[in-house]
Amino acid sequence: MEKRKTIAIDMMGSDLGPVELSKSVIRFINENKDYDVLLFGDSKTLISIFRDIGKSQVTIIESSSVIPMEIKPLEFLRMKDSSMYMGISSIKEGRADAFISAGSTGGIVTGSVSLLRLIEGTTKAGIVTCIPTLKDNPAIVMDIGANNSCLPEDFLSFAKMSKVLAKSIYKIDNPSIYLLSNGTEEGKGNEEVVNAYKLFKEKQVEGFKGNCEARDALDGDHHIIITSGFSGNIFLKSVEGTAKLFSTLLKKGFKKNIFTKIGYLFSKSAVNVVRNQFDYKKYGGAILLGVNGIVIKAHGNSDEKSFYSALKVTKDMIESKLLDKVKEEISNGTDK
Amino acid sequence: MEKRKTIAIDMMGSDLGPVELSKSVIRFINENKDYDVLLFGDSKTLISIFRDIGKSQVTIIESSSVIPMEIKPLEFLRMKDSSMYMGISSIKEGRADAFISAGSTGGIVTGSVSLLRLIEGTTKAGIVTCIPTLKDNPAIVMDIGANNSCLPEDFLSFAKMSKVLAKSIYKIDNPSIYLLSNGTEEGKGNEEVVNAYKLFKEKQVEGFKGNCEARDALDGDHHIIITSGFSGNIFLKSVEGTAKLFSTLLKKGFKKNIFTKIGYLFSKSAVNVVRNQFDYKKYGGAILLGVNGIVIKAHGNSDEKSFYSALKVTKDMIESKLLDKVKEEISNGTDK
Repeated sequence: MEKRKTIAIDMMGSDLGPVELSKSVIRFINENKDYDVLLFGDSKTLISIFRDIGKSQVTIIESSSVIPMEIKPLEFLRMKDSSMYMGISSIKEGRADAFISAGSTGGIVTGSVSLLRLIEGTTKAGIVTCIPTLKDNPAIVMDIGANNSCLPEDFLSFAKMSKVLAKSIYKIDNPSIYLLSNGTEEGKGNEEVVNAYKLFKEKQVEGFKGNCEARDALDGDHHIIITSGFSGNIFLKSVEGTAKLFSTLLKKGFKKNIFTKIGYLFSKSAVNVVRNQFDYKKYGGAILLGVNGIVIKAHGNSDEKSFYSALKVTKDMIESKLLDKVKEEISNGTDK
Repeated sequence: MEKRKTIAIDMMGSDLGPVELSKSVIRFINENKDYDVLLFGDSKTLISIFRDIGKSQVTIIESSSVIPMEIKPLEFLRMKDSSMYMGISSIKEGRADAFISAGSTGGIVTGSVSLLRLIEGTTKAGIVTCIPTLKDNPAIVMDIGANNSCLPEDFLSFAKMSKVLAKSIYKIDNPSIYLLSNGTEEGKGNEEVVNAYKLFKEKQVEGFKGNCEARDALDGDHHIIITSGFSGNIFLKSVEGTAKLFSTLLKKGFKKNIFTKIGYLFSKSAVNVVRNQFDYKKYGGAILLGVNGIVIKAHGNSDEKSFYSALKVTKDMIESKLLDKVKEEISNGTDK
């Protein structure tokens, strides 16, 4: 029999609150009977929600203090009664196989690095996520927010870890790897990109194709896009913002007159193709890679659908043994 | 009688070649009889195109060598026979009121700074452009590609210059000013943004509202977005790429079956609202601000429509006396 799996869940810190997150948790444990959850948060609220639900699968642990949006490592380590501290610790203590939170990104990164430590051989932990593209496969982008600036060696770690993700989860055998820059030519970019380009070339990183402009990153042929968290965050949020703007304008357009309204009825399925492709909630969870533990960052404004999707990502991470593969790739030392 | 105006045009260096650019030039001089053009490029080609057109308005100047995409200041200064060198020089010599090119961004920046010099009081020249938003007014973004990194003082110059643009061209009386970052809170961002935030706060820059995430930048309430050229370029190109992807997917969707095709016929006007709003060709020209001369950077792959729009931007710049106003604002010393 398969060993039961346990996910530690930070029920605090999300914009929409524990009630919204609970809906996803309930759906998840109902669909995955071999999974248990440790819920960290305000126990009174959680007990009232889970009174009659999934008794054997749910453990509620009182930890009602919340890590604030901006936090320094020392402050984090002092907040031992916070849902995030306790949740991350539960991995370290061997009580959980993974941790997921919709709370402060800074807190998740700081806390995970402090409590779980970096994987030997990595220089930094980074957050990796997937962006929908013109094709069926997403573009894998790392880092989207853990580090404001990076060294070339950090980018090298990111590339190795992303490659494992591309192969294990998205079944892309020979993923192409690019550095996000403001031009495709070698020598284009800020210092961090220019230096990373040199190192990637020198190390003959397999799959490295050079720089990539943000405009081309979504064509489906750019499998892995490596960037520092500052630029990666701007990239990701520009895509999200534009998709949202496009959607809003389209909706407005369809309401214009009786003809456009009729048109909408006929073409609804066409519009849904686009909406579906651009549905960020499909990619609800970003993964913190580089620490000794599976840590998932869900959207701060996670609703039921996106937090559920983040829980599925967590499950994928556990079952694909991604972390072991990442460790193996890193410790291999070869970046081929 | 109004004095005649002259625009110096680099007919080389664009992806689509001088024939495509000529169409926009012909349309422009036909519609603006008080404008002359100095055309720099391969005179044989240009003479054959303009044989019977606008004789009194057109002067062709042989300068067939082309500034390459990547160029260093010293190399630029050696290429005295290039269309870009000669075009920029014509401003300095008082023969033209403005210069426009669809060629190398690096060349335009390097050449303009070298030949025209920075406006006294500015620390850097930057490229400013407009991005469509949910509202009628665009978002003004500076810098989108001239500088990979900036100092806080550079950002201050950019803010002053952008404000003049917002007021003079877009009639926004009290433009809001933001720093592009990966979070709205003070303290968020890379070193360059964090330091700029401090300076803006200290100087009590009028209209400064703090940081802005890329996701919110297109809502129409963020009038001016200040960033370094590296991040600005990623932002701009992400928006362009996503808009294009959305368009492509929508087109694909409408071709799905007979119903969606009928739907398209009915809702064409709705779709056109979106296409129109997102039409980058409307904002064909980016402006290099900070040098002693009006310099416009047109899209590298400028077609007739976008280059024509860039010519109109050039005309607006001349007639609004934007450069004088920018100089006044900068020399004022106050950043209120």
